[in-house]
Amino acid sequence: MTEARHGTTEAWHPTGTLERHGPIGTQRDEEPDLSSGGQWPGVADGLQTAVSDGHEALVLLRESRASVDPELRTAIASLPASMRRIAFYHFGWQHADGTPAADNAGKAIRPALVLASAAAIGGPGARAAAVKAAAAVELVHNFTLLHDDVMDRDTTRRHRPTAWAVFGDADAILVGDALQALALRLLAADPHPAAAAAATRLADCVMELCEGQHADTAMERCAPDEITLAETLAMAEAKTGALLGCACALGALYAGATDEDVDALDAFGREAGLAFQLIDDVIGIWGDPHRTGKPVGADLAARKKSLPVVAALTSGTPAAAELAELYAAPYDEDREELERTALAVERAGGRDWAQTLAADRMARAMQELARAVPDPEAAGGLLALAEFVTRRST
Amino acid sequence: MTEARHGTTEAWHPTGTLERHGPIGTQRDEEPDLSSGGQWPGVADGLQTAVSDGHEALVLLRESRASVDPELRTAIASLPASMRRIAFYHFGWQHADGTPAADNAGKAIRPALVLASAAAIGGPGARAAAVKAAAAVELVHNFTLLHDDVMDRDTTRRHRPTAWAVFGDADAILVGDALQALALRLLAADPHPAAAAAATRLADCVMELCEGQHADTAMERCAPDEITLAETLAMAEAKTGALLGCACALGALYAGATDEDVDALDAFGREAGLAFQLIDDVIGIWGDPHRTGKPVGADLAARKKSLPVVAALTSGTPAAAELAELYAAPYDEDREELERTALAVERAGGRDWAQTLAADRMARAMQELARAVPDPEAAGGLLALAEFVTRRST
Repeated sequence: MTEARHGTTEAWHPTGTLERHGPIGTQRDEEPDLSSGGQWPGVADGLQTAVSDGHEALVLLRESRASVDPELRTAIASLPASMRRIAFYHFGWQHADGTPAADNAGKAIRPALVLASAAAIGGPGARAAAVKAAAAVELVHNFTLLHDDVMDRDTTRRHRPTAWAVFGDADAILVGDALQALALRLLAADPHPAAAAAATRLADCVMELCEGQHADTAMERCAPDEITLAETLAMAEAKTGALLGCACALGALYAGATDEDVDALDAFGREAGLAFQLIDDVIGIWGDPHRTGKPVGADLAARKKSLPVVAALTSGTPAAAELAELYAAPYDEDREELERTALAVERAGGRDWAQTLAADRMARAMQELARAVPDPEAAGGLLALAEFVTRRST
Repeated sequence: MTEARHGTTEAWHPTGTLERHGPIGTQRDEEPDLSSGGQWPGVADGLQTAVSDGHEALVLLRESRASVDPELRTAIASLPASMRRIAFYHFGWQHADGTPAADNAGKAIRPALVLASAAAIGGPGARAAAVKAAAAVELVHNFTLLHDDVMDRDTTRRHRPTAWAVFGDADAILVGDALQALALRLLAADPHPAAAAAATRLADCVMELCEGQHADTAMERCAPDEITLAETLAMAEAKTGALLGCACALGALYAGATDEDVDALDAFGREAGLAFQLIDDVIGIWGDPHRTGKPVGADLAARKKSLPVVAALTSGTPAAAELAELYAAPYDEDREELERTALAVERAGGRDWAQTLAADRMARAMQELARAVPDPEAAGGLLALAEFVTRRST
């Protein structure tokens, strides 16, 4: 895979030698905003004009779901009855008792990236041809959610009990297995000339996602002083960046892009994905619970070794030592202590670092995008989606 | 899939209206033997001569491993390091500490079926071309073993602690996920013209395997009187027959067989697989623990609802009522009670039924084989393997 290519081992200097770009790193709003008024460093002015206020992304997401949902539902409906029921529940299409539910399957950003990438390279025809690939990516994403929830013992997903919490571990594991098979089957049965290369790439991505989840669970078991920032960044790229990159790469493959452009769009998705993860981690500590669905400080209460926390812990500052001490004991429902923990992360530079690096990664994403899709109008959809994911916690 | 085609709902008559064929159903040896001296009913005489004493099968298995192991090892070596280690352990190639181990990866009957099927239809060239498909089938088999062991909380596999028992649930689930991806990647990246059809079929098989495992875990939670024999047979076909059938079908696909012959070889593998399961269940109750690695009565002690047990429970005989009563309480280490339980299954007709049905399924397998491969010499390898699996518990 491509982790090494982009160098996930940025040196972390608590004094802030990474130059601050744009609005990131200076604002302490409840929801970090990567776009409002700022200029992406190193990005052609033409592309800047395509950054939307989020409206364009919402339209793209809606249009993507309109194209992909029928394919997805047909695929899932082909599962054996017992597993279909659990998959329908997981996707938010049914309640646990099998009665219809208001659709709550998440924003489905990944299939939208597949279609936007295909459209950016090959126009509407390529977009239409890539619908099966978009559905395959969404199936893989959901297979990993089902399995990760089992491993992490997470009881809530999209504001509902997780599948394992309702149907048990065995069935949640089995439905995940079946969704992976379904994803790769969609591509195997697709006569499109890019289907085999797309399946190869998607299977490689699954292995990288597994490695990312392995690293995540292994790190959560480690003592804070055993973890390096480089490992944490590599884990985040494998767990979050890989599939966003793969989504963009698959769209490009289906549009007949050159190998170089496929790789550039993969890198675009990966960099945007890492920016998203950094912002999501910031929101997990300081974010608005009404907007994100996460209570403020939830990650700190769970003693989660998120990116800003590891940056803070490895900063060599006095605040790092204080943070390590706070993290050594489990959270005991003391809100005041939670605020002190958040302040320690901030004083150790974890918040600034995360916001600066998010801007840096986003700038790299824009450079990769400009390389593969020089026409700002054609690149507009991908840009709008990347901007959207780094503004919101999904 | 093809469950419905072969009708898994044989009526069960305790008085034995299913005609007995050949040696099965009459012998009570420690290891049921489907071949020694008997004639397969409805099978051309020519094929009979190809039934070996097991020597031919052992040669085929050894040759298959010599061809497939390098492909398999190369594929697994491409996994990220953390998962490679666990996969090497699971396959018996390394100890848990990473030191080399004596190879103990099981008999690898499924890849041998792929190669034998390809050779039966297309000769040595087709066999050589099907090595990747053979490795893919073995990867899928092992992915399901890894996950099934987690779900079933089985602590021993091939005489060693299971992967989850050594490395934890999360890593065992992740390695299983990665092996499934690796299997479908092998086919996606294979330029052979049959690769896409093979991948589609293998993915369909994964979904059927998941359904079989779901049915198995669901049935083990049910009260004995809630289970029908038809359900139990359908479960066994999905869990055991499907992948043996798929292995044969993939070999045929890679040899350029007609759709009809591919389906016939799939059916051959399924029928032989069900015969294997029936015999395995008989061995699980009355078998020789030195030859099978299972203690006598282990399935009864675990109150397992294996095929002979469900046949006995649903027989409507007085012994069925006695068996239901014995199964209602957990096993309390009383060997004498275990013998009474085995006797109840036998008196209710469960043993005779299983052996009769195994012979019947094996006869059907032979018919399917003769249809796809009329030349007895060409069919010899597949016949030897089918005979081998139904003689031994692997």
